[in-house]
Amino acid sequence: MCGVFGIFNSKTPAEDTFYGLYSLQHRGQEAAGIVVADYSKARKKTIFKQHKGMGLVSEVFRDETVFDTLSGYAAIGHNRYSTTGSAKSTNNIQPFSLIYRSGSLAIAHNGNLTNARKLRNELTELGVIFQASSDTEIIPHLAARSREKEPVQQIYEALQQVQGAYSMVLLANNQMIAARDPYGFRPLALGKKTDPLTGELAYVIASETCAFDIIQAEYIRDIEPGEILLIDHLAVANEKPTSLFLPPSERKARCIFEYVYFARPDSFIFGNSVDKVRRNLGKNLARESSIEQTPGEKELTVVSVPDSSNTAALGFVRESNRAGRPARFEHGLIRNHYVGRTFIQPGIQSRDIKVRSKYNIVRGVLQDRPIILIDDSIVRGTTARMLIKLIREADPKAIHLHISSPPITNPCFYGMDFPTKRQLLTHMFDSIENEVDEIEKIREYIGVDTLTYLSMPGLINSVPSFEGESCSYCTACFSGDYPIQVNEATTDKEEND
Amino acid sequence: MCGVFGIFNSKTPAEDTFYGLYSLQHRGQEAAGIVVADYSKARKKTIFKQHKGMGLVSEVFRDETVFDTLSGYAAIGHNRYSTTGSAKSTNNIQPFSLIYRSGSLAIAHNGNLTNARKLRNELTELGVIFQASSDTEIIPHLAARSREKEPVQQIYEALQQVQGAYSMVLLANNQMIAARDPYGFRPLALGKKTDPLTGELAYVIASETCAFDIIQAEYIRDIEPGEILLIDHLAVANEKPTSLFLPPSERKARCIFEYVYFARPDSFIFGNSVDKVRRNLGKNLARESSIEQTPGEKELTVVSVPDSSNTAALGFVRESNRAGRPARFEHGLIRNHYVGRTFIQPGIQSRDIKVRSKYNIVRGVLQDRPIILIDDSIVRGTTARMLIKLIREADPKAIHLHISSPPITNPCFYGMDFPTKRQLLTHMFDSIENEVDEIEKIREYIGVDTLTYLSMPGLINSVPSFEGESCSYCTACFSGDYPIQVNEATTDKEEND
Amino acid sequence: MCGVFGIFNSKTPAEDTFYGLYSLQHRGQEAAGIVVADYSKARKKTIFKQHKGMGLVSEVFRDETVFDTLSGYAAIGHNRYSTTGSAKSTNNIQPFSLIYRSGSLAIAHNGNLTNARKLRNELTELGVIFQASSDTEIIPHLAARSREKEPVQQIYEALQQVQGAYSMVLLANNQMIAARDPYGFRPLALGKKTDPLTGELAYVIASETCAFDIIQAEYIRDIEPGEILLIDHLAVANEKPTSLFLPPSERKARCIFEYVYFARPDSFIFGNSVDKVRRNLGKNLARESSIEQTPGEKELTVVSVPDSSNTAALGFVRESNRAGRPARFEHGLIRNHYVGRTFIQPGIQSRDIKVRSKYNIVRGVLQDRPIILIDDSIVRGTTARMLIKLIREADPKAIHLHISSPPITNPCFYGMDFPTKRQLLTHMFDSIENEVDEIEKIREYIGVDTLTYLSMPGLINSVPSFEGESCSYCTACFSGDYPIQVNEATTDKEEND
Amino acid sequence: MCGVFGIFNSKTPAEDTFYGLYSLQHRGQEAAGIVVADYSKARKKTIFKQHKGMGLVSEVFRDETVFDTLSGYAAIGHNRYSTTGSAKSTNNIQPFSLIYRSGSLAIAHNGNLTNARKLRNELTELGVIFQASSDTEIIPHLAARSREKEPVQQIYEALQQVQGAYSMVLLANNQMIAARDPYGFRPLALGKKTDPLTGELAYVIASETCAFDIIQAEYIRDIEPGEILLIDHLAVANEKPTSLFLPPSERKARCIFEYVYFARPDSFIFGNSVDKVRRNLGKNLARESSIEQTPGEKELTVVSVPDSSNTAALGFVRESNRAGRPARFEHGLIRNHYVGRTFIQPGIQSRDIKVRSKYNIVRGVLQDRPIILIDDSIVRGTTARMLIKLIREADPKAIHLHISSPPITNPCFYGMDFPTKRQLLTHMFDSIENEVDEIEKIREYIGVDTLTYLSMPGLINSVPSFEGESCSYCTACFSGDYPIQVNEATTDKEEND
Repeated sequence: MCGVFGIFNSKTPAEDTFYGLYSLQHRGQEAAGIVVADYSKARKKTIFKQHKGMGLVSEVFRDETVFDTLSGYAAIGHNRYSTTGSAKSTNNIQPFSLIYRSGSLAIAHNGNLTNARKLRNELTELGVIFQASSDTEIIPHLAARSREKEPVQQIYEALQQVQGAYSMVLLANNQMIAARDPYGFRPLALGKKTDPLTGELAYVIASETCAFDIIQAEYIRDIEPGEILLIDHLAVANEKPTSLFLPPSERKARCIFEYVYFARPDSFIFGNSVDKVRRNLGKNLARESSIEQTPGEKELTVVSVPDSSNTAALGFVRESNRAGRPARFEHGLIRNHYVGRTFIQPGIQSRDIKVRSKYNIVRGVLQDRPIILIDDSIVRGTTARMLIKLIREADPKAIHLHISSPPITNPCFYGMDFPTKRQLLTHMFDSIENEVDEIEKIREYIGVDTLTYLSMPGLINSVPSFEGESCSYCTACFSGDYPIQVNEATTDKEEND
Repeated sequence: MCGVFGIFNSKTPAEDTFYGLYSLQHRGQEAAGIVVADYSKARKKTIFKQHKGMGLVSEVFRDETVFDTLSGYAAIGHNRYSTTGSAKSTNNIQPFSLIYRSGSLAIAHNGNLTNARKLRNELTELGVIFQASSDTEIIPHLAARSREKEPVQQIYEALQQVQGAYSMVLLANNQMIAARDPYGFRPLALGKKTDPLTGELAYVIASETCAFDIIQAEYIRDIEPGEILLIDHLAVANEKPTSLFLPPSERKARCIFEYVYFARPDSFIFGNSVDKVRRNLGKNLARESSIEQTPGEKELTVVSVPDSSNTAALGFVRESNRAGRPARFEHGLIRNHYVGRTFIQPGIQSRDIKVRSKYNIVRGVLQDRPIILIDDSIVRGTTARMLIKLIREADPKAIHLHISSPPITNPCFYGMDFPTKRQLLTHMFDSIENEVDEIEKIREYIGVDTLTYLSMPGLINSVPSFEGESCSYCTACFSGDYPIQVNEATTDKEEND
Repeated sequence: MCGVFGIFNSKTPAEDTFYGLYSLQHRGQEAAGIVVADYSKARKKTIFKQHKGMGLVSEVFRDETVFDTLSGYAAIGHNRYSTTGSAKSTNNIQPFSLIYRSGSLAIAHNGNLTNARKLRNELTELGVIFQASSDTEIIPHLAARSREKEPVQQIYEALQQVQGAYSMVLLANNQMIAARDPYGFRPLALGKKTDPLTGELAYVIASETCAFDIIQAEYIRDIEPGEILLIDHLAVANEKPTSLFLPPSERKARCIFEYVYFARPDSFIFGNSVDKVRRNLGKNLARESSIEQTPGEKELTVVSVPDSSNTAALGFVRESNRAGRPARFEHGLIRNHYVGRTFIQPGIQSRDIKVRSKYNIVRGVLQDRPIILIDDSIVRGTTARMLIKLIREADPKAIHLHISSPPITNPCFYGMDFPTKRQLLTHMFDSIENEVDEIEKIREYIGVDTLTYLSMPGLINSVPSFEGESCSYCTACFSGDYPIQVNEATTDKEEND
Repeated sequence: MCGVFGIFNSKTPAEDTFYGLYSLQHRGQEAAGIVVADYSKARKKTIFKQHKGMGLVSEVFRDETVFDTLSGYAAIGHNRYSTTGSAKSTNNIQPFSLIYRSGSLAIAHNGNLTNARKLRNELTELGVIFQASSDTEIIPHLAARSREKEPVQQIYEALQQVQGAYSMVLLANNQMIAARDPYGFRPLALGKKTDPLTGELAYVIASETCAFDIIQAEYIRDIEPGEILLIDHLAVANEKPTSLFLPPSERKARCIFEYVYFARPDSFIFGNSVDKVRRNLGKNLARESSIEQTPGEKELTVVSVPDSSNTAALGFVRESNRAGRPARFEHGLIRNHYVGRTFIQPGIQSRDIKVRSKYNIVRGVLQDRPIILIDDSIVRGTTARMLIKLIREADPKAIHLHISSPPITNPCFYGMDFPTKRQLLTHMFDSIENEVDEIEKIREYIGVDTLTYLSMPGLINSVPSFEGESCSYCTACFSGDYPIQVNEATTDKEEND
């Protein structure tokens, strides 16, 4: 996963992009970069400038003087997710910028192409060379080979050839282009900002609307699935970007896991509030929960794994109370504010120091009480297990773990950085055919008293529906129902963006 | 303010101290350091090794290889608070280590001496030289001039001469010493850890118990006000540290603001759970609140400023519900996880970017509703004002700001890094004699619909009482009632620790 | 200009390359990189690993742990010259590594292609995209488009299409390839090293033989002009690399300026000792010099600009003595050992601080004496002027500046990082048709008493001759006689390697 | 050893000091620091600002913005020598700055006190604490205990109590003080600079005059042995600093090794040109040499170990020629320009890589010839041995090693960073009573054909004599004749400055 951001017609595009990326930091912590488009009087054309590096946005741009070298009128930026295990090459840091037939191009991409291997093979057979192992490079290569003259047409042609998930923003000479795949896997939003001094209009593109909030830009609408949006100085003057549309897909496939876990709760994605959806997840989880008040307890004590499950926990409490099962929300776990990517773990004394460095327990809340612990999902199960071990130190009477989504049973081929199937916790118990038995085994492994997953209908019921669409979401990680056939050869998932 | 940590008889004292400081990071972000005591076979005595630097613990110790140079059997560490405005000299980074008559000494100190200026003047008159502007150096100077032979006796003698607030941990050759002033201003706790492999006992000292949790040490008890605790290899063998006691003060003066804001909620300080006290503050605030449910709203919507006010907000909701005024807790503000000391703010476009970088609003929660916003305290008022401006963007019907402590009216001379009196928000309206009118002015300045402070009785009622003590807490910042007469010359507060 | 290095069949290829690049540091100080070929058991093929960065080799590889990640059996490396004025993009740091039809390819290139613009245009028309502005990328693109199967054949085909100066080393999967253009502009040498423990043979490629000396490798021979040398495990086993040869050019064009200034005196280039050639330059300069002993002086005092002109000065002295004009070599200028790329010049108080930071005068040597100052060349003249100003502070009776090469009158299009024609000192006096008058103007500008340049015949007489070659050297910068017609469009020289 | 610098009444004291330290870099590479005196309008007095760090001057001050924080009117600076083996504590970085009875004091010190241990013991007995293990701290402690009111008088009183070698510069509030011990062990010079714009006079103090040259300051005179010089704004106005004099010592003891090796050849120290003295050393070495021309060789080939022995080699050649034994100077060894403190040696493949990284041979010069190799001194012998091994690779007919100083037989207690007696090469053969036999053993160990040391009379004859002084130099390292009795307890030489 990754975060993308773009702004056009700003006096401070690099600074705006810095803040945008900063607010999208949760979408990728491994590397960050900004490419700026500036008009060069000497060369009488737009030139690109860039700064990229490994680490958090605030680390890569730690030296403030770098902004002096990044003046211009437009910029795009990218946060890269930490890809585990693979060689962490600086070649892979986006945005990629390059020179081709029609001038300069820069691209920041979030997603995963499902026919990447096939296209790569075809292109290499034609003599194309690749700098990096990422899918992203395929797109400019296809665009460069297009016979079209206009970059936006080249991109259009290129995107007709790729399959899979992508939300991207590009700079093409003096234009900014935003594009989203026809399935609409990944979010991408359009906003605008009016300069408080000059009244000039800037257009903004971002993975999530929290990036608009930080620079006081205003959300206009989502980039539609299949839309290719062109912003140039004319579009600014007319206050009207123009759009092309890729042939529609037979269904839509918005990533439901963005709502479950990935996006920030203060963002709007797919046109809806993440916070609201998570609240629904919690409510439905409460409806499905069978945990009853223990005699002697006035209420159910509901504890969330902060901060990702806070909203679901509030929803759970609300619905529980509404339904006559008194419950209260509690902060039983404290999240350390200073956890960051640069955190080292010298002399790892015990294997759970990583969990201890991130969380601590509030004894008074947990001790001698049965607690309902709300978490959003379980991927590998290792963190959950350590966390339960940590909570046990506070001597709760019981831990009833409630997961606000169904079991993850399948890898993602559309950009979510899940492990391979073999590494998923559910895989450990694949041989068990009975689902009830399987969950019992997981419960045992994690070390909780009871384990409740939200049902698939409960999940679907929590997310907004889109009129006129037969199928709006991708639930493949829960259901195995992959919207796009995946080339088996791609499934080793060497690298996602 | 600062955080201190010490461990004795560990195989990995520097690593343990790293984790301890890491969990005490909230007590000081400006600088960090570790001094290790190791036995040198070559010199046949204990030698000290150190590593110190500006920045967060994780930054100062970013290079893992530094731990290779910090082997030993005991260590102390220190987090320094960011002192605003003053020259940020590396001379001031603690622990201070030095060589004197009886060997080597290292000191990590949290607090502020009220007779520092007088002692400093006396000492300089005697020819003493100071490296740094901090109070802390006075103590080893006094110890070095003692005629006692044992370091612990020298420290005892030194501490009889100083007045004010201090909680400190020292290494003196092959001993670790912990000391707390007779008033007990700052917290200091004793713990122990049993090595899982060897079964060996290590003693641990920390400002807050969250530092025990992270290394799986166990809380034993607080260092008592006036106690000087000596830990050496004999103490470990006997499982019995020895103590000296300074002459008792006429009253105690535990810092009530540690409970209100400073300490981590998962810590125990002064022998009690911070979380529990904050909950009480919220409950009492609810009792004192006059905000009624708005017609058309089923419940009061209670929003906290995360994360410091979360617990108080939960207490508020609980008491409110108990008292028949239905309320619910909501996450209306999201705190950015990636805020850190190294955060830069290029091209500050608007003055509120700092607040926007830290918080964002959850529109769905705030919009069109009257909200009760819980914050722990207001110092200068600038952040509060910006935050309210930010919340207003979500169009709440009303903002009822509730502060879970009384107005701060006086500076702290015992180590809390408050500004001078002139910089306190309350000072702005000093000329207004009527307290009601003053709060009305503050309300207007902050920009909220109503403003409620917890009363002083409400505050006192929230904190644990200590048997046999006439006065247990320092409330000077709220009440002006200073437990120790402060030398007027000191009140410019050039530097606290 | 740049330095290249490669080693095949070493146990420590990255370390060897580090030392090789370190000894070639004078060929490029802006950036450095190493790509290693390692056999991956997991993937059952050779994979590439890399580390690159801006700065000196010792800075880029300052963190020793980087070598832990660079294990393998072969490596190539590159030092990039500081290109003045242009945007210093990290995209341009070599070796470039990439993935194409036949696997992995990495390239380190020293030189400049004269038909780069044309090829680039043709390639971009075909849809090729470029990452960087350097010429180097063209070569792998051409190779990737070849229909040949073997990388070495692809390179062969590619090099048939490019014109200009190049000496390069490549990794192609499990092979190392070295290539030099048919004119032989830039040096490139082949060496070997026998592992002292295992007796195993490693082949080494380097721009200059000083890179062999540092790792105790042995010089075998030069890579011939037009030769493409293939080294693989078979070549090692047979102790016999194989070669292909490009069609020969009508003449050779070894860069004579490498001998004059660029190469290290302890290197062999073009099969001959640089030191010896420089000595000849000095001798011929002495023969051409008209400076006579001043009455009252026993000898001529000959001072060199250290360290580049030391050998020429020694040759001058030797020939002078032989010819009966007593002369002695003196160190009248001291070169600061600590000058490096990272040197900052805060608050530039006077414009000559840069010269003062690099050199200082030895008064006793210079004072009250006429001195013959030997320098290798004058490019822009600014440094020379400052240096003369500095020497004047020692009050020499006269400064007779002798340059051990003719005036530089033309830019270099084959890789030497000269400025454009307009920036050359000689250009300043272009309007003066009489050469004698022109040199008089230059003398005046530099501020010396007399100015003597080595004549073109004196230059040619100093360098080794190659049997059977009508023309062996490129002297274009002195003579304007360009061996390869230069596309006018290329002459803006945006970027050399 | 160390370098010190100070400037008073400059507009850019930190920048000047930076350049001064930069040119004194050879006197200490481990750490560097600058303390600036600035007038604070707010506090109505002079305040000190500082920046210090480990590494070369150019590394410590790599971030140019640090100079923005170092404005003022005066500054002192210090380069610390690399002390091998001991813990490299940042506590030891000079200048030390401190606060005491009379205000602020900062000190930069070059030398070694011989009664340091005694004074330290006395002071610690009185309750003094030390931050660092260096001698330097003793001086401000003694000054602080003085009953004098004026800092210069306090320093005077302090220096009457210390014995040993010191050349130092201090800032005391708004004054700069320079002091040199009565024996005059270490050099210290006074200079002045006139601001080119304002015509204002600045006084400058430096270890060597090369630091004056770089900032275009002018040498006035040496600080006399025993002189304490006071520079303040009055001194500037009157163009007349004032001096106090310590009681004279019975003899002088200028460090003769400064002339032999340590100082830069372009400096004047002890009022005389270092270059000239080294030339004399070479001449006397020639007079004492018994190496005759080999039949078949026209001349003796004289090669120096660059750059320290260049001048001696030139003197050798000159005298040799004068005496009718034709000789010529050759550059047979090339010194790498990029060697610096930050140099890493990954995977040390062979033990001599350190020597190879610093030097390379010029084969053509060395091959098949007997050479006279001039080096200034041999301390441990390890580098010399490796260097000879390297030279042997060029197959010289013979290596006649000539050392331009006598054998080093004794450690230095006055600041030169020699090893202990046990680590000196000569100690290896202590049991051999016959000096001739001992030198034969050393010759064998080093691996040369013949070995010639300059005789003690030859040494003495080379250095300038001072009228009216019975004894002017310290030759203890060669002769064992220690000018100041050394407390045996001090001889373990834990730390020099």
